[in-house]
Amino acid sequence: MYAQITQFTKMLRTLSRLLDKAQQHAAANNLAPDALLNARLAPDMRPLTSQVQMACDTARLAASVLSGKPIPVYEDTETTIPELKTLIEKTVAYVASIEESDFAGWEERIVAPPGWSGAFLGKDYFYQHGVPNFYFHTVTAYDILRHKGVRIGKMDYIGQLPFLQR
Amino acid sequence: MYAQITQFTKMLRTLSRLLDKAQQHAAANNLAPDALLNARLAPDMRPLTSQVQMACDTARLAASVLSGKPIPVYEDTETTIPELKTLIEKTVAYVASIEESDFAGWEERIVAPPGWSGAFLGKDYFYQHGVPNFYFHTVTAYDILRHKGVRIGKMDYIGQLPFLQR
Repeated sequence: MYAQITQFTKMLRTLSRLLDKAQQHAAANNLAPDALLNARLAPDMRPLTSQVQMACDTARLAASVLSGKPIPVYEDTETTIPELKTLIEKTVAYVASIEESDFAGWEERIVAPPGWSGAFLGKDYFYQHGVPNFYFHTVTAYDILRHKGVRIGKMDYIGQLPFLQR
Repeated sequence: MYAQITQFTKMLRTLSRLLDKAQQHAAANNLAPDALLNARLAPDMRPLTSQVQMACDTARLAASVLSGKPIPVYEDTETTIPELKTLIEKTVAYVASIEESDFAGWEERIVAPPGWSGAFLGKDYFYQHGVPNFYFHTVTAYDILRHKGVRIGKMDYIGQLPFLQR
């Protein structure tokens, strides 16, 4: 399970690189970066900025509730790509600050995320909400960029893999 | 980790329900279901049919390589919503047929998926490829349907959660 927490930080760094590609795409095409940050896949879906913020929120929440460490509050005020990259860096630093031993007993820990109207077992929260919600926002961010023509591909999303041999 | 395998089957059943909503949307709007099955978010991205097939492929591959059980070969010949739902049912039945004890030692198992040019440790394969790739195709299927106006929302994607109390 700690490998999945580590994977959150890998994916957040990936998201940061995808934002770099978005910035380059905007510059190369004389687009305002806002045209990407405000882009969405349906009128009643959230735009790219929110997808990045919510991926960060989800990683931070999972790391906090499963370790019992206090959760840092961020205000989701980002409006530029550099600000979103800073949010990602802060989130990675927070998640990475929690050590594997801090998660001891996480599966049976009773988890009641702030503002939610219920409690779960840690393992149910993590696999049935934390992980799928994290990927929901990460993949939707990717899909928005793809839909807007940013030149990225599946391997930009998957990232480097630790092969033993080739 | 077995909870994540179980989560694959939960998400596949969710995908099947999303396809029901797609079918209803097509019927209610006098659309051919093909207009949804062939829909994609970018000209060089794969359409909905492929996203569903690849989510199934990924769940089947993970369950097979991490347990050492033979992988059933499916031909990806589906062209209708009922056929995709049958593929999902077959995939759920296969994944659910592998018991938790069959995965013993999965983290250190050396995994070389058929046709891939390398091998990984089981835990690296699972968290860095299997899980993110599964969610990539599942979320992209959802995003395609949302983009095409099918009336689904985030809770259709997350599904029911096992709350302890409310």
